[in-house]
Amino acid sequence: MIQVIHGNFLFTKTRCGFTYRPDSFLLIKDGIINALMDRLPDEYSSLPCLDFSKNLIIPGFCDLHTHAPQFMNCGTGYDEELIPWLEKYTYPTESRFSDNDFASKAYLDFFRELWRVGTTRACVFGTLHREASEILFSQMLSSGIGGYVGKVNMDRNSIPSLSETTEESITETEAFLSHTCNKSDLVKPILTPRFVPSTSEKLMSALGSLAEKYDLPIQSHVSENRDEVEWVRQLHPDIPSFSEVYDYYGLLRNKRTILAHAIYLEDREKALLKDKEIYLAHCPLSNNNMASGIMPLSEYMNRDMLLGLGTDVSGGHRLDMMSSISGACEASNLLYVFEPRHRRVNLSEAFYLATKGGGSFFGKVGSFEEGYEADMLVLDPDILPHQDVGTPEQMIGRFVYSADASKIQHRFVRGREILSFS
Amino acid sequence: MIQVIHGNFLFTKTRCGFTYRPDSFLLIKDGIINALMDRLPDEYSSLPCLDFSKNLIIPGFCDLHTHAPQFMNCGTGYDEELIPWLEKYTYPTESRFSDNDFASKAYLDFFRELWRVGTTRACVFGTLHREASEILFSQMLSSGIGGYVGKVNMDRNSIPSLSETTEESITETEAFLSHTCNKSDLVKPILTPRFVPSTSEKLMSALGSLAEKYDLPIQSHVSENRDEVEWVRQLHPDIPSFSEVYDYYGLLRNKRTILAHAIYLEDREKALLKDKEIYLAHCPLSNNNMASGIMPLSEYMNRDMLLGLGTDVSGGHRLDMMSSISGACEASNLLYVFEPRHRRVNLSEAFYLATKGGGSFFGKVGSFEEGYEADMLVLDPDILPHQDVGTPEQMIGRFVYSADASKIQHRFVRGREILSFS
Repeated sequence: MIQVIHGNFLFTKTRCGFTYRPDSFLLIKDGIINALMDRLPDEYSSLPCLDFSKNLIIPGFCDLHTHAPQFMNCGTGYDEELIPWLEKYTYPTESRFSDNDFASKAYLDFFRELWRVGTTRACVFGTLHREASEILFSQMLSSGIGGYVGKVNMDRNSIPSLSETTEESITETEAFLSHTCNKSDLVKPILTPRFVPSTSEKLMSALGSLAEKYDLPIQSHVSENRDEVEWVRQLHPDIPSFSEVYDYYGLLRNKRTILAHAIYLEDREKALLKDKEIYLAHCPLSNNNMASGIMPLSEYMNRDMLLGLGTDVSGGHRLDMMSSISGACEASNLLYVFEPRHRRVNLSEAFYLATKGGGSFFGKVGSFEEGYEADMLVLDPDILPHQDVGTPEQMIGRFVYSADASKIQHRFVRGREILSFS
Repeated sequence: MIQVIHGNFLFTKTRCGFTYRPDSFLLIKDGIINALMDRLPDEYSSLPCLDFSKNLIIPGFCDLHTHAPQFMNCGTGYDEELIPWLEKYTYPTESRFSDNDFASKAYLDFFRELWRVGTTRACVFGTLHREASEILFSQMLSSGIGGYVGKVNMDRNSIPSLSETTEESITETEAFLSHTCNKSDLVKPILTPRFVPSTSEKLMSALGSLAEKYDLPIQSHVSENRDEVEWVRQLHPDIPSFSEVYDYYGLLRNKRTILAHAIYLEDREKALLKDKEIYLAHCPLSNNNMASGIMPLSEYMNRDMLLGLGTDVSGGHRLDMMSSISGACEASNLLYVFEPRHRRVNLSEAFYLATKGGGSFFGKVGSFEEGYEADMLVLDPDILPHQDVGTPEQMIGRFVYSADASKIQHRFVRGREILSFS
């Protein structure tokens, strides 16, 4: 199927600035972008053309790290740091997902909001409950949003109401995989060991084997909080660093693993994660709320590491990626104030992370270049430049910093409009 | 006139926690709170009672520092720090307010948003233009929102299109005062020297005299940015600190002066500002966006200084005080990470600053205690606690961190509902 969309396209081919193509035509074949043209060639002039000539069109947002069951907790519990926050707020909430009806309602709220805020691809944590995680997977399929869903693995250091044995964790993960693998090429399962302190050596080892056997992607957390880093050191005294624990158990898979946070990495870890081509999900709102710290984003960009942004709900308090984009800029500004060797990250760099940067985990996603999947957001005409607006930065800056999802008029994934659902 | 309001009231009598009074009755006489009661005494039972028994009611928000003409710039220009940002983005925009029609439209947008986000009192900067500032004053009167409006004074170091001579500045300020003084006891003029680098010694001196003569309040900026602090040192080498320049010219008036930012104060300045009972407006979003730094809020609270929050649009990118409340918590968290002698500021403390703390600049404003002016926001019933919600912190946290103004159903100032205007 061939589609033509007429509009004003704004995107980031690289981190170093916006590409703005006003009054242009996007040619899409079977959901894949064929060309972005100034004029529509005669051969296509008879095709129906979606007229968004008064709208700004941007790539859909890609959220590399979020927790669906925690969405209901947004804005609560920020009086603690990571470990007590998990025990006091997060684990009790997640334990409620043993109830499938409860899970079903909660996940519907999550996807309604994810749709509303213009996220078109996401990597989503469920809970340890297999059935609830299958509900999460099914709902993501229904939503039209693409990405990955994981049943969480956690067989140590949790609370009694949220625990599984090592055997249960492995068996239930295999069952989850058999239920979800090959169901869709848009929504797929992902192995999800919560983090080192939650997963025994035997479990990490089994997950590493599963990943290898079925060629699976993996998502987890690394080096978010200073107490957490110290705890990992105590749990694994024979392994030199947090990241190397994952590596030891086969959980750092080339271009297939996402680790969230990565605030306090040692140099050896930076080299390892760069070498293994591991994605790092920067989650600035969460890191602010939980007094975790600030990821040295400009340093990681200098090192050419694979980077994206995550909302990390409910450590983060907002599911929209606009707030994570502005939050990444703000966090980098403050890191620069306190440690001037870091440089300020600008809007195009942060926008790139939320689109093409994180999007690359999902394939050719997050840009309007040839061969990219046609994920896009059509914005309200009042976002478009008028006489008061100069640069693309100013135009998109107003939208991003307002974080006003009501300005998103249409959402497309692979060329297909995804509609609100009930 | 006596009014009775039935609802669920949440407020902060002190910084140290929320007071929650569910299913209670607020008795208001001539706009002033007479009592908040568990039961309505028989003598009032025949009075009409506004039934908000399914709603959460909180004090209206008080914005201690914002710039109306910059509202249109929200989200743009955050690639610079303070001084170049002023010259490149802010001054050119403000220069357009020589056109009264332009000003009139822009200020209408500003007040629509200020109303929408539930701000019921504000201290507002205009531009140096007298007529546009009078339009700003008139519109604030029409809006029903209370507070102060200032014509900006700036007779040095600006751009050609935004400048006034010292004489013009004084004459036009006197004209602005004669137009605005005694027009209303809800909206009043305030002297507004932009900041030390913008105001000559002669002008500061004249404004100090005017302030004394007419007993006027004053608003300005202090110690926002390291380059700015250094510039002030060069401009006034004989005066030991930034704050003391204001003091020298009679601009630190007991409980009547607001200084925004106050990030890099020396100890002598802290002592002076405490002694003079000067209000400090903390503007976390602005300080993040412009890489200014982080106000040591917990230290100032320990010193019992007078404190409130400001949106500082468009250094800050959002006009809602909810974002400044969460922003104050987030900024304090990061300051604690980098300088652990500072402590994290919690939600009730930041909420207090945005209501009763900043509110005290306007009189007895920002609480539901006896004698306070009845400024309040009635929130959507879905904010109220249901079975999932425990503490008041959790209930109000969801609202504040969502920054979702659509959840505000009614706004009252002095017991009178203020309605949207066109």
